[in-house]
Amino acid sequence: MHYTKKAIEEMDRIQKIKFMNSVSGIKPANLIGTNSNTGQTNLAIFSSVFHLGSDPALLGFITRPTGEVPRHTLENIKETKAYTINHVSSSFVKQAHYTSAKLDSNQSEFKACGLTEEYIADFKAPFVRESAIKMGMQFKQAIDIELNGTILVIGEIQHLIIPDAAVTKDEDIDLSKVNVACISGLNTYYSLKKINRFPYARPNEIPDFKK
Amino acid sequence: MHYTKKAIEEMDRIQKIKFMNSVSGIKPANLIGTNSNTGQTNLAIFSSVFHLGSDPALLGFITRPTGEVPRHTLENIKETKAYTINHVSSSFVKQAHYTSAKLDSNQSEFKACGLTEEYIADFKAPFVRESAIKMGMQFKQAIDIELNGTILVIGEIQHLIIPDAAVTKDEDIDLSKVNVACISGLNTYYSLKKINRFPYARPNEIPDFKK
Repeated sequence: MHYTKKAIEEMDRIQKIKFMNSVSGIKPANLIGTNSNTGQTNLAIFSSVFHLGSDPALLGFITRPTGEVPRHTLENIKETKAYTINHVSSSFVKQAHYTSAKLDSNQSEFKACGLTEEYIADFKAPFVRESAIKMGMQFKQAIDIELNGTILVIGEIQHLIIPDAAVTKDEDIDLSKVNVACISGLNTYYSLKKINRFPYARPNEIPDFKK
Repeated sequence: MHYTKKAIEEMDRIQKIKFMNSVSGIKPANLIGTNSNTGQTNLAIFSSVFHLGSDPALLGFITRPTGEVPRHTLENIKETKAYTINHVSSSFVKQAHYTSAKLDSNQSEFKACGLTEEYIADFKAPFVRESAIKMGMQFKQAIDIELNGTILVIGEIQHLIIPDAAVTKDEDIDLSKVNVACISGLNTYYSLKKINRFPYARPNEIPDFKK
């Protein structure tokens, strides 16, 4: 099938949302934990967390602005400057998925979805106990994307918690050791099967691929 | 293991790069195809392509500015306004990985890595024949991220090419049908195993997760 820009524009609204959420490829499954200044916790699944830089250690994610629908994650981050990013494991994808239901602001997705709040000293936002890899983030910047009204939220890693089993001998992280899950589209979850690992690609070490 | 911000800052440079490229979770594997106004083609693997919006159909990716190292992808996109995003399948992850080698600007990664240029009418940039899902993109905006000097490149989908086999009966896209590959960290490639698919999450339809 070949869809032109015009064909995409004319797609049924739901099909367009499904298609456009799939075509970037596989997405990471992360839960973002926040709380308000009054202590109300919030937890929401995001598939848009991405690596932005190693030094400083920055991660970004995309959200929509608070409009007709309240966006508790963004509101809390602006209020407290603290949030957590927690990897979803294949053992709790269902609980993680249902954090996307729009609950009232006085209800916590932790409780509604059977996930457990966890705190560390000197960090305000709640972590997810069930997650293997989790990060405490400090809010750095929100960049408005005028093309469609979305917001890029950027934070710096303050705390990084990883099980020993996920750290390899050569100081890399093996995500398959912690059964990390990933997402395609809006609602399909996958686990991983390792294919291969390749060395840093130097121009004079390219294998002979020429036909 | 618990790494604080200070411990991350003091990590060995290579370990820091490996760790920070892994902690966002699983990343999509995409090849971005471009050419210069003189017709020199370029192909590079990116793990930072992400969904930015469905209407208009926008995708973003992160790159570094041209500095000591030339960035042919960005230079070509600014020159021609056209580029392609091509999914990497598990059958050619090795070829795709080696497009990351820094070749001279007069060498094409298509040829060096044994991948095939493919063109469609009225679109300048080269697609990757071996890819199942591919998109022709029009450059819309480059946003400088001042926190670390990276650049968010945003484009709109002009052409979307998908095999019939990947489109499901309910008008979704099944990425496992085209053996899409994904990346963790700098150089580990995975294929997918479907766990489950869940319906749109409505507040009154949350399963009873309470303990």
